[in-house]
This record gives sequence, C-alpha cells and structure tokens, in this order.
Amino acid sequence: MRILVTGAAGMLGRKLVQRLLADGGLVREPSSQLVLADRVEAPSPAAAAVPVERVVCDLAEPGSAARLVAGRPELIFHLAAVVSGEAEADFELGYRVNVDGLRALLDAVRALGGGYRPRLVFASSIAVFGAPFPEVIGDDFHATPLTSYGTQKAIGELLLSDYSRRGFVDGVAVRLPTVCVRPGRPNRAASGFFSSIVREPLAGKEAVLPVPDDVRHWFCSPRAAVGFLLHAAALDGKLLGERRALTMPGVSATVADEIEALRAIGGEEAVARIRREPDETIARMVAGWPRAFEARRALALGFRAESSFAEIVSVYVEDELGGRVGTAG
Amino acid sequence: MRILVTGAAGMLGRKLVQRLLADGGLVREPSSQLVLADRVEAPSPAAAAVPVERVVCDLAEPGSAARLVAGRPELIFHLAAVVSGEAEADFELGYRVNVDGLRALLDAVRALGGGYRPRLVFASSIAVFGAPFPEVIGDDFHATPLTSYGTQKAIGELLLSDYSRRGFVDGVAVRLPTVCVRPGRPNRAASGFFSSIVREPLAGKEAVLPVPDDVRHWFCSPRAAVGFLLHAAALDGKLLGERRALTMPGVSATVADEIEALRAIGGEEAVARIRREPDETIARMVAGWPRAFEARRALALGFRAESSFAEIVSVYVEDELGGRVGTAG
Repeated sequence: MRILVTGAAGMLGRKLVQRLLADGGLVREPSSQLVLADRVEAPSPAAAAVPVERVVCDLAEPGSAARLVAGRPELIFHLAAVVSGEAEADFELGYRVNVDGLRALLDAVRALGGGYRPRLVFASSIAVFGAPFPEVIGDDFHATPLTSYGTQKAIGELLLSDYSRRGFVDGVAVRLPTVCVRPGRPNRAASGFFSSIVREPLAGKEAVLPVPDDVRHWFCSPRAAVGFLLHAAALDGKLLGERRALTMPGVSATVADEIEALRAIGGEEAVARIRREPDETIARMVAGWPRAFEARRALALGFRAESSFAEIVSVYVEDELGGRVGTAG
Repeated sequence: MRILVTGAAGMLGRKLVQRLLADGGLVREPSSQLVLADRVEAPSPAAAAVPVERVVCDLAEPGSAARLVAGRPELIFHLAAVVSGEAEADFELGYRVNVDGLRALLDAVRALGGGYRPRLVFASSIAVFGAPFPEVIGDDFHATPLTSYGTQKAIGELLLSDYSRRGFVDGVAVRLPTVCVRPGRPNRAASGFFSSIVREPLAGKEAVLPVPDDVRHWFCSPRAAVGFLLHAAALDGKLLGERRALTMPGVSATVADEIEALRAIGGEEAVARIRREPDETIARMVAGWPRAFEARRALALGFRAESSFAEIVSVYVEDELGGRVGTAG
C-alpha cells in the first residue's frame, strides 16, 4: 500500500510511522511505499522494510500538494497542523497551514480524478468544541470553537465531509482528545501543562501547573491516538455515512487525578516537583475546554482508548521510559 | 451610517436596500452612504435620499474586497452567494464565492485595523443542517450539511465567529429559513418549487411539484428575512457571546399546508395548476432538509417570523401582487 503522512515530523507523525513499519500490516505488500511530508525533514525511520521518501514542503504552497499525491497514495494521514498556542499567536499562519493546507491537499486529490479516491484520515481535535456545554458532550452537540485552532479544525471537518460526499476522497476525521503524556520538549499547545506535570517530575525536573487541581479534561495516550489513526485507516467508510467526523473515546480526568497517578508511580518526591503558578490566561482558555464525551459512535465503530489516567501514565512509562521510572532528583 | 451590501442585486439584497431607504432609520444621518456590490450591476434604487454607489465586482478577486471596505462602512450585509443548486453543480464556483468571497471580505476588514470593527451581518442558511435530525432541532444541534452550499455556509459561520472573537469584526450570522414565496423567476436553488407552487398558480401559470404533499420544511417570507437582517444589524453584539450564528424563527409547514393556503387565497382553480411530477433527485435532497426548529436564542433576542403559511402567502400578495390576487386563467 502506498501511504502518505503529512506532519510526519511531529510527535504523532513519528509514532505513527514507527508503528506502521513495526506492525507491517499496512505496508506488507511488496509495492508498499511511504511518503513522509512535513515543513521540516521527518526523521529517517530505522530499519524500514519498504521504500521511504521524505519530502520537505509547505502544503499551502502552489504545487506542493499535487507533487505529494502524484503517486496516488491509497491512504493519506493528514496530521500537518499548527498547534493551538501557535494558531492563536499567528492568525495568518494558522489559517494557512490548518485550512489552506488541507484544502490544497483535497483539491490535489480531486484534480487527479479517474476514480482515484484515497482514504484520508484527518487528525481533528476536541478543540472544535467550546463552552458552554453539558458535563458530558454527546455526538450531536454543535461545534462552537473558542480558538482559531478549533475553528480551523472544524472547517477541516466540514471540507472533509463535503469532499467525501462528492466522491473525491473517502475521509475520516478523528477528533483527538488532548494527547497526554507527550514525550520530549513542550510544544506550543496551550494544553501542554497536562503532560509536563507528569513528564517533568518523572524526569526529576520541576513542572509548572497554571490551573486549579479540579480542572477536568479529556485525554488519551499517544499510543491510543496512533491507534485511532490506524483504526480510522481501516474503517469501512460506508459505516460513517455522510458524517465523517468522529469524537474519539478517552479518559475524563482532573488535574488531581493526574497528580494521584503520578504519586502512585513516582512517589511524593515526584509530586513535590509540581509548582503551582496560577496563570489567568491559560485558566480562562482551559475553562472553555470540554471535560467529557460520550463518544458513542466511535466506541460502536471499535475505537478504544485507555480507561484511567493511571493507565495513561503506565503507557508513558512503557513507551518512553523503557518501563522504568528513574530515581533522578 | 455607511452601509455596504454585497449580493445587492439578488432578491433579498434588492428588498433589503428598498427597506433601508424606505425606513430611513439606518440611513437617516447626513453622512449616510450606501454601497451596493454584486457580480452584476444592482438596480438603481428609486428616490434614494442618500448617495448610492453601485460596484460590480467579484469578492474573491484580489483587491476587490479591499476596495469595497476602503470607506470603512460601519455596517456590512454580506448576502453575496451562489445558491444551493448552483453550488452543487459547480463545485469550484461555490467554494470561490461562498467561502473565498467571505474570507476575502473578512481579511480586508482585518487589514484596515486601527479599531475598525464593523457589524457584519452574514446571510447563512438552515442548509447547514443535514439529516438525520430530531423532528424539531434545538439551538445546540450540530451542523452536518449534506450539500456543498450548506458546507460553505457552515464554514462561513465558523470564520465569522472566529474573526469576531479576535475583534476584527462584530459578526452576526442569521440562518435563514427557506425564503418563500420568492417573487420573480425561479432561481437555481433546489428549494425553488416551494415558492413556485404558490407563485405560478396565482399568476395563472402551471407549477411543477416534485415531492410528496407530506414533505415538511421551515419557511419565512422575504419580508421576514429582510426583517431578520435589519434586526441583526441593530443587535447588541455582547448578547451573542462567542456564538455568532443564530437559527432564525420560521413556519414549519408541509406542502399540503402550502396548498391549503393557496386554495384559501386562489381557489380550486389555482390549486389545479399544480402538476405533480415526482423527481427522485429533488426528493432525495429534500429528505435531508430540516423540518422544524426551536430557534429559542433568536426568539429571545427579538427575531420574529410569520406564524402560519397562510400569513406567508398574504405577505406575498401584499408585497408582490399589490394586495390583489388576479383572475388570470
């Protein structure tokens, strides 16, 4: 199978590529090929059994998208995006990457024609929802984003559904929960502290907590997020009908739940590394974020997430720390 | 007040301009000025007490939007649109006019800066909703359009809300019911038959009914639609919060209700001019259209529609036929 991954240099992109190559399922056939696109060069995957091409490009640039799909990939993972903090800080960049980039990709696919209709898995986000909303949000609740990022993702979902209905692509938009615990350095997502208050203390470092302990939010691990993307890739499009956007399952947890999970694995000394430093701006943003979802459609379609925040931390320890919590600090 | 109307040559645009000039409210001050923009020349309003400039332009063309807002209109009615049938037939034209046109307008306003933040009234549509939905749709129900037109309007609402939240405009999107009875010739909206089965028989002509009598839909008169736009223009933006799109009130009526209203005013001979000619394509489209709304937010904000289809027909007779039903045929 020929597979294109945009945003392949990002955290999820890299994990998705690793898993594609490790599982071998989708890239087993001899004709398999992987194209990794991003604005910066994606890392070269170790021990790839199939040809891997890495392309540095800006999707919104004329001609870029056409070059990427010229080989008619049967499966496209569209992960390329500017994250929430950056899209809020740079209005034009957000629309350019998050809206124009996707539209260029869709139009490039449409231009090929001749029965070409790839599965396109689009990484959307629960940021399409904005307060006020019920404590638990159902699948029929309206998307009223309170950030430019959420707006751009909601527009992307609409485009994907319309282009799918018209037969140009076979799209699935997966609304990812906040992915936690993110490995590596903080990115510019406003939700970054949800990860850093676990990741940094486990690495013996201090982390800043800008919101109260009773803040509740919706999470999944990077491993579950990659699982969603792969499950979406293999889904029967007919089961989706015209509604191509699916809210993913996840774990509804408070900051206090996070801290308890950290305590269970890293002890009091880890918890002591969290420094409370209330930030009004972040607290205001977070107050507009969803706390829990039903995600009935996605569950019925077989999407699966973790069942507790403790499980999310375990996944982090297994996947990022080699299964062992260090004694640093 | 300086007012810009895009789509000023269309049916609603012409009625809006007539009413703006007749009421005098918004254009009373000596500095008042009206700019009428469309892809074709808007008709010159009779007896205008204020300067009226007519501009022929394509909003999506670079520079067009900037020229239109150079005079910093305090109030913009954005009605320019390709209708549903045309947006479905010409995919690129629909996106160009309905999405790129609005975005160009918003970006032109944003580029002016310096505290310029006009009220922008955007004519959206109940086409943002698509089946399956409940018998009566609430204000929190999600937008899952089943046409490119509906998709484009939903994208427009998202843009308007985000640009409003960022302080670039002070937007209000009014989701218009199907406007009925439309005067004049049929346009390319797939919903055109709802008007023609009243309009044509009252003019002594035959009309084609492509769907069953029990089809239910959501209506308002052109007069009510213009009233919505004017009410939206004067609304306190703070009352809207971040949710800038409002589903308008209307009349939930079946084709049978329409026929009864026609019978009451035009008699059996008028009803006899309706020719049933089932059209599978239209019936399938209409099956995906909403039947009724709660419209609680809009009602609470003072928007008002007709209360029966008979009243809608009366408005048509008053506004278009000089209050008299002819005896033609």
